[in-house]
Amino acid sequence: MDSNASLKEIGRTLEKASRIIIFPHVNPDGDALGSAAALCFAMRKAGKEAWVLMEEPVPEYLSFMDTEYFTEDLSRARGRYVSVCVDCGEEKRFPKRAESFRRGETTICIDHHSTSGKCGDLYYIDEDEAATAQIIYELLKEMGIPLDRREAEALYVGICTDTGSFKYSNTTARTHRIAAELFERNIDHNSISVALYQSVDEKRLRLRGRILETMELFSEGRGAVACLTDEALKELSASPDDGEGAVEMLRDIKGVELAAFLKEKEEGVRVSMRAKSRGGVSEIASKFGGGGHAKAAGCTLQMHMEEARAVIIKEMEDYLEKSR
Amino acid sequence: MDSNASLKEIGRTLEKASRIIIFPHVNPDGDALGSAAALCFAMRKAGKEAWVLMEEPVPEYLSFMDTEYFTEDLSRARGRYVSVCVDCGEEKRFPKRAESFRRGETTICIDHHSTSGKCGDLYYIDEDEAATAQIIYELLKEMGIPLDRREAEALYVGICTDTGSFKYSNTTARTHRIAAELFERNIDHNSISVALYQSVDEKRLRLRGRILETMELFSEGRGAVACLTDEALKELSASPDDGEGAVEMLRDIKGVELAAFLKEKEEGVRVSMRAKSRGGVSEIASKFGGGGHAKAAGCTLQMHMEEARAVIIKEMEDYLEKSR
Repeated sequence: MDSNASLKEIGRTLEKASRIIIFPHVNPDGDALGSAAALCFAMRKAGKEAWVLMEEPVPEYLSFMDTEYFTEDLSRARGRYVSVCVDCGEEKRFPKRAESFRRGETTICIDHHSTSGKCGDLYYIDEDEAATAQIIYELLKEMGIPLDRREAEALYVGICTDTGSFKYSNTTARTHRIAAELFERNIDHNSISVALYQSVDEKRLRLRGRILETMELFSEGRGAVACLTDEALKELSASPDDGEGAVEMLRDIKGVELAAFLKEKEEGVRVSMRAKSRGGVSEIASKFGGGGHAKAAGCTLQMHMEEARAVIIKEMEDYLEKSR
Repeated sequence: MDSNASLKEIGRTLEKASRIIIFPHVNPDGDALGSAAALCFAMRKAGKEAWVLMEEPVPEYLSFMDTEYFTEDLSRARGRYVSVCVDCGEEKRFPKRAESFRRGETTICIDHHSTSGKCGDLYYIDEDEAATAQIIYELLKEMGIPLDRREAEALYVGICTDTGSFKYSNTTARTHRIAAELFERNIDHNSISVALYQSVDEKRLRLRGRILETMELFSEGRGAVACLTDEALKELSASPDDGEGAVEMLRDIKGVELAAFLKEKEEGVRVSMRAKSRGGVSEIASKFGGGGHAKAAGCTLQMHMEEARAVIIKEMEDYLEKSR
């Protein structure tokens, strides 16, 4: 826990505001969008003008979410407003919106990443919370705003995403108690589960096969790496985003402790990393200017694929050797 | 709900007994074993001689479970005892132990399958419970036996297994409240998740690729079928059990409503079926002498693989056409 303000103080600041602009991070996941959406719906209910300001469309796999007040129109951030960034704490995580964020009368940061940059006049970072959605849940309770189905569904998406549907070690009794309360708001949890977990497209499944062909285990099976090459993408006319989920597949191999999945993107080789039991990947990611959690982190390397692959294997080998 | 006895009455019967023999079904899954183990631990704690009687070893993927009082020794069922079958309700689900079951002074059936055969002098079937483990949880509460970590871990395995880690539509607020209580018993949920979900072996992963090659979609992408042939098994020196999880992979394809996975076994072609949103597979399975739940069922066909495949596709096409 690292905060310069309580949720009560943050709540009071929001209560006093009449316009609130919410900033999820780029490359948004279910927790960033779910936390942003729930906060936005609740603020609207409390009579405020609230918007979730984006700098890119909602990813296809999250397009089922209710994003009524999501906008890419920077002019929504006009006049006097309070800024809230959620699930991130650095301006580089919302680069095209950083100026709009800073222009807020008060800037607030709500995050659960241990590597959080804590940008904001007020910040509340709790890395013991499995998802930022759990903090938003607490904040709304603190503010006395009752949860309706709409906020509950958004928060549920956030919690599912960041706990791997209650499987990851960040899940606690509290996570399940919150989930129980969300269920009592009559959420359509089956549709959310189907959308999140049972909507793999055929192309992605075929791509999995191709990624598996590049799989290499090292450090006596305690490390695994695989990559998505441009050739495979072209052949299956897939996009790099179709590689989503591959790194979890590698992590889930018996005996594997650290896994990395590399894909070529315009800005360089994007490396997604996962740790199974003991963490360590945010440490590796931060060496290369990236970040994240102990068990889920990422970075971008300005190298060719083969070089990046060798660098990451070396880092992981060293880490696994050290932590023996 | 279909019961001729309350959990209170079942509890009283167990309290009066000094020896209790518990019968999970053949081909046991996490719910059968978790329910059996939790009941057994609790009965031991209450001063009784209790055994879980098996007719086969615990499957490899569940070998992490605490199975101290599991035995294949039929002579454990001697003298006077109460029999309890869990997660099933037909003697054909424990064929080699049926006589031992019947020899119990009182026979009890605790199950959550809507197709349950309700064998037993006393039976308690509640298909609204996501897992038999939830019924055992309630029974122990009814009997005033406090949960320790050992029972809690066994019940957690049962609940995770049958709800697909809280993803399936059978999950309720109650499921999450029970999970929260189990977490408060300090269960090692991360080790359980790692064992259940993050211990895929390399061979299985390679086999997935082979199974994917046989994949066929039908009924405009609303049905999917794939099979595991003897050739693929030989080539990868894998066993039919290595196909575990394949049917869920098929179900999880976007647009797929019904999925079937076929594998050759000694007794014939074993068909595992899953439905995504609306169910229907127990109906198909029961046509061929099988059974299960609306969304997860299975049967065995005495045919060649190609014939069985055609039969199942036809059944699913008809069902999908009818339910349009």
